[in-house]
Formats: sequence, C-alpha cells, structure tokens
Amino acid sequence: MKANRIHNFNPGPAALPLAVLEEIQESFLNFRSSGMSIVEISHRSKEFEAVLNDAVARTQRLLKLSDRYRVIFVQGGATLQFAMIPMNFLADGRSADYVNTGTWSTNAIKEARVLNKAVRVVASSEDRQFTYIPAKIPFTPGAAYAHITSNNTIRGTQWRSFPDTGGVPLIADMSSDFMSRPFDPAPFGLIYAGAQKNIGPAGVTLVIVRDDLLKLVPENLPVMLKYTTYTSKNSLHNTPPCFAIYGVHLVLKWIEETVGGLEKMAALNRAKAERIYGCIDASGGFYRGTAEPAGRSQMNVTFRLAGEELEKRFIEEAAQSGLGGLKGHRSVGGCRASLYNAVGPEAVEALVEFMTTFAKRNG
Amino acid sequence: MKANRIHNFNPGPAALPLAVLEEIQESFLNFRSSGMSIVEISHRSKEFEAVLNDAVARTQRLLKLSDRYRVIFVQGGATLQFAMIPMNFLADGRSADYVNTGTWSTNAIKEARVLNKAVRVVASSEDRQFTYIPAKIPFTPGAAYAHITSNNTIRGTQWRSFPDTGGVPLIADMSSDFMSRPFDPAPFGLIYAGAQKNIGPAGVTLVIVRDDLLKLVPENLPVMLKYTTYTSKNSLHNTPPCFAIYGVHLVLKWIEETVGGLEKMAALNRAKAERIYGCIDASGGFYRGTAEPAGRSQMNVTFRLAGEELEKRFIEEAAQSGLGGLKGHRSVGGCRASLYNAVGPEAVEALVEFMTTFAKRNG
Repeated sequence: MKANRIHNFNPGPAALPLAVLEEIQESFLNFRSSGMSIVEISHRSKEFEAVLNDAVARTQRLLKLSDRYRVIFVQGGATLQFAMIPMNFLADGRSADYVNTGTWSTNAIKEARVLNKAVRVVASSEDRQFTYIPAKIPFTPGAAYAHITSNNTIRGTQWRSFPDTGGVPLIADMSSDFMSRPFDPAPFGLIYAGAQKNIGPAGVTLVIVRDDLLKLVPENLPVMLKYTTYTSKNSLHNTPPCFAIYGVHLVLKWIEETVGGLEKMAALNRAKAERIYGCIDASGGFYRGTAEPAGRSQMNVTFRLAGEELEKRFIEEAAQSGLGGLKGHRSVGGCRASLYNAVGPEAVEALVEFMTTFAKRNG
Repeated sequence: MKANRIHNFNPGPAALPLAVLEEIQESFLNFRSSGMSIVEISHRSKEFEAVLNDAVARTQRLLKLSDRYRVIFVQGGATLQFAMIPMNFLADGRSADYVNTGTWSTNAIKEARVLNKAVRVVASSEDRQFTYIPAKIPFTPGAAYAHITSNNTIRGTQWRSFPDTGGVPLIADMSSDFMSRPFDPAPFGLIYAGAQKNIGPAGVTLVIVRDDLLKLVPENLPVMLKYTTYTSKNSLHNTPPCFAIYGVHLVLKWIEETVGGLEKMAALNRAKAERIYGCIDASGGFYRGTAEPAGRSQMNVTFRLAGEELEKRFIEEAAQSGLGGLKGHRSVGGCRASLYNAVGPEAVEALVEFMTTFAKRNG
C-alpha cells in the first residue's frame, strides 16, 4: 500500500489502478505536450479524439466485438439508460422481457413502466430476497428485447453465464462487472455500464449497441436521448464528459497492456473472490455470505456478522486498519467488500488477515 | 505563462485557473486525507457531500439567490436541458416564448418542437446573421416561460441586460457567460450552464431552478429527466459526475476567494474584452469584429481578417507563438478569442501584442 493510501473496497465510485491515477496526476498541467490540461483541451482537438478513439478501439478488442457493434459514451448513468432503452427500442404494440434480480433491475422495470411501455417480468428472485439468479427463464418469443442486470451490487449476486433468450436481443446492465471477465457478445443487442466501478471515474456510461437495434430508434426523440445521435457523431454531438472518457481510456489501456486482457483480468478477479468467500466459509458461521453459493458475485461479496453492533465494530476497526468502504448498502445493511478490477490481491490479503484476526478476537 | 503551458483561448472546454489545476494535481492520490483519490471516493461520503454542498453554497452566495432557488447538478450538457425544460414545464395547452439569437437558441427551439410542444419564437436576429441581440420583444402574457441564450459563443453576441418579460418566468442558457458577471436573479425561473466554459471541466451542467417552476413538473417522466429528482435528493439520486462537480467547487471558490466575487470578475472580464475589441477597432479594418457593437460579447470575441488564407495563417502563427484555440466555430469560420473567467489579462496582452505585430507584418 502506497504511503497514506488505503485499501479501497468502495462499491462505486471505487478504486482505480494506481498507475492510472499517477499518469493523470503527472500530466495534469500539460496533456501530451498540448500546453493544456486534459480538462482544458477541446473535445474536437486531435488530442481528445485520439483518447476517445483509443477507448473505443480497446473496448472492441478486449470484448472481440464484431463490426455490428458500436461503442458510444453517454451521460446520466445507468439510470438514464433505464429510460433510453424503452424509449429507443420499445415501440407501441411491442413488449419487452425483464428479469428482476434486485434493486437496479427493479428500477429499470419502473422506468419502462413510467413511459407506459409494455413490460413483462419473466423471472424474479424477489421470493428469496434476491439472493439468487433465476434459471430456466421463459423468455417471450418476439419480445423486443430481454433485459438483465449482470451483477447485483446490493445483494451480491452475479450471472455466471448468460441465459439463452431464443434469439430475443439481450440487453444487460453490466455497470458493476463490465470488463471484469470475457463473454460472448453475440447474443447482446445492447450492453451498458456506468464507468465508476470497473473502468473509470463517475460521469460517463459506456454503451455498446448492435446495428439491428439502431434501426428501431424513432425519429421524434430529444437528440440526447437517441442512440443514433451518439453512433452517428462518434459521441461528439455536444461536449462529452472528456475527463471521465480519458479515465476510461487509461483503465482500458491498463487492462489490455498491464493486466494482459480479460482472461487474465477474470482469473485475478476469480482468485480474489474465492479468497474472501473461502475466509467466510471457513469462519464457522462467524461470517455468513448472504447470496446463495451458486449465484455469488465475484465483484461484491456481501456478508453478515452475528449482529448489527458487531458489524458496526467490524467496519470501524477495518477502517482504522486502512480497509475502507466495507459497509453494506444502506437498504440492506451488513457488510460488503467490492472487489472490482483495480482492487489488488494485496488489498484482498489484508482484508482476509483482518477478518481472520477479528473473528478470533470476537468469536 | 508557466513553463510549457500555452495561452488558451478555447471556446470550451476552456482554460481553468492554474491554481485550481494545481490543487487537483497536488491532492490527486489522496483527497483530504481520505487515503483515496477524489475519483475513488463514494458520492455518499462526507468528503464528497462537503464538496457538493460547498459548490451549492458558493453559487447561492455569488449570485445572491433567495431561498426560492435550488442549485442542482445534471448531466447531458445544455443540449439535454433543451429537452428537459419543455418536458418539465410546458404542459399540453400552454405555450412558451423563445428568442432566437443563434445556433444554441435554434437547437433549444428544435428540441421543444421535437416533443410536440407549443413554441412561439417572439424575436430573432436571424435576419442579420445573428449579429445582434433583439430589443423590444413582444413576450406573450401567460406564456409558460420565455427562453433566451445569454451569450452566443458562435456569433459572439451577448445580452447586456436581460429583457422585461412582464412576469413570464425567464429561462436562460448561460453556458458561456455564467459566473462572468453579477445579475439580478429575480426574473429567472431557471438558469442552466454547462460547466466547461466558465466554471469547471466538461461533464456537468449547473442548474438553478425556482420553486414555482418545480410545482409544474409532471409525475410521469423518467426519473433522470425530472428536475424534482435532483432537488429532492441534493443531486444524489444516482452517482453524479463527482470529478466535474469537484472542479466546479474549486472554480467557484477561486472566484469568491481569489478574485473576490462577481463584481470583480466582471470588471476583469470587461477590461479583457475592451482590450481586444480596442485592438480590432484600431486596426484600420485589418481585423473586423463580426458582431454589431451594441451586442458584442465579453466572452467570445469573433472577428475576420481579409480572407480565409490570411485567417488560417493568423491562427497558425498564433499557435506557434503559444496562443491556442483562436479558430472560429466550424459553422461560421473566421477567428474567435474566448475570454472566459480563467483567461488572465497576461494572455490578453500576449494576444494583443501578437495581433498588432501580425497586422503590421501583413497590413
């Protein structure tokens, strides 16, 4: 751990690779000999277009996207995507399937309904407090799309593999596990991810959209709410969130060049998660994982201790030991260790050591 | 000029105060002893809430806002505001007045019409290529609101004082002159400003909204497109663009504490603009201002030389002399010096010196 820096288990905004932060800091007064900061250069300058195009190209390479996919940058977070998706792809007379696996899925469904769109919830894990990922889902043939949340930050569950929709375009909110592992993009019509967990600073959403969905976009939408505005203008219809895109560019470069790609990123993430779940499962019940084992997230490890007092002390003493961000989401309580890409194995080892010691002292 | 930094006359993203950039750089690996970067801390942490609340409080103080006004931070730029304003405030059966003073006003009108809203263009300067600001405007009694663009970056015009709407709530896009001068907020129902010209990095729009307009917001809008979502949650419904808000906080602090408030900011801006216009007017026609004198902008000085070849050379030689961003908007050509808050008098002196020498060499 670098002097004065903590081990950061925040759920997002979250840890970023130290090398990325140092590069931003180093060049902050003079970006690539422009004589200006990255936050002062024009979004239409050759310097910024190189940043933007590099972020797009790395996304295409890391995910092995075919040329049917476009990579764009949108503002407003995943929550604006909840509305833009039905506005763009769900015409009157058609309906879309949604799988409800927690808070963010619930919000996505709500936004589609606010727009008076026809939504069918084809599966839900609400019956057991969203502690698992549904299987054998009866997707609707002819649905406009099928929406899932690939990782559920609050309940600590994650899709191990993606469901077969029978040809219905899959749309996924991957905000909390995007670029944490490789996957086959072919079934996806659209993928979106707020940057602030695995790929950059808050303030930008990376969206990948397939050509067949772009054909569905209606004309009469506000220009900032149409995906075609972004695909036709390389995300430069108006001034984009330049600094956040710059951060994404640097993190994707780090994944590709320093980590060595998504297979390696996934192996690191798997090992980190197994280490913490191993510690929980070996604690003789001192720590209890809240997700059912088959649906456990490799990004957000959610767990409880024997009572709220003990949990509070766990979080406080961890913070005193330089382990930050371990409080569970305010809606569910408990503890949560978020293990996004930039959380290193050394942070995980420090947490395991603390958990082991804390359990001994309080068991 | 600090070593290797240029004088930056970019139209936005634009120059930021060097002291602000240095503070960001200095603390970038460890924000206020949190052990984390500003881009790694939670938007719900006490550290970030202090940043956000300080930006709000400084806006209230600098503009002397009454408690009828709320200050919020929205994503999507001014262009998303073009749509949100009619979505929130223009119910069926009502109409709104718009004054057309150039590209951005035109786009605002277009977005309202895309939504099938009733829009009345009550004045326009299109008849003389948007080179002036209309006077004696026949605002419509009972209109839902009256929309203006306070400064027109492309054509280089600016409202000297704001029009009397006879009680119709005034709404202004102040993206390019916000916080450049004091004004009476009382006639305004809503003010919005993309940060990237006068108050911070790209990626956030500061919006000021009055309580009577908030009462008009309909229920059935997507949550990220309702102003009440932001006012009821202190702009924290979802993860906001933390870094951009942090930048705004630092720039507003600089305006308040280093510059000494908006009267002083305005005096500096006036002096800078007068210096360049003086140089243009004294050039014997070598440089020609494109805006009619009464409507000249203090933020964006637009001017032409005798031909496109000469203009190209002017821009190139200026860049070689460390004066960047002087190219006019691609839609109109020519030259433009943007003199936002962070462009110092020394940059203006350097530009005047260059302009004088260039005119002598080529006159």
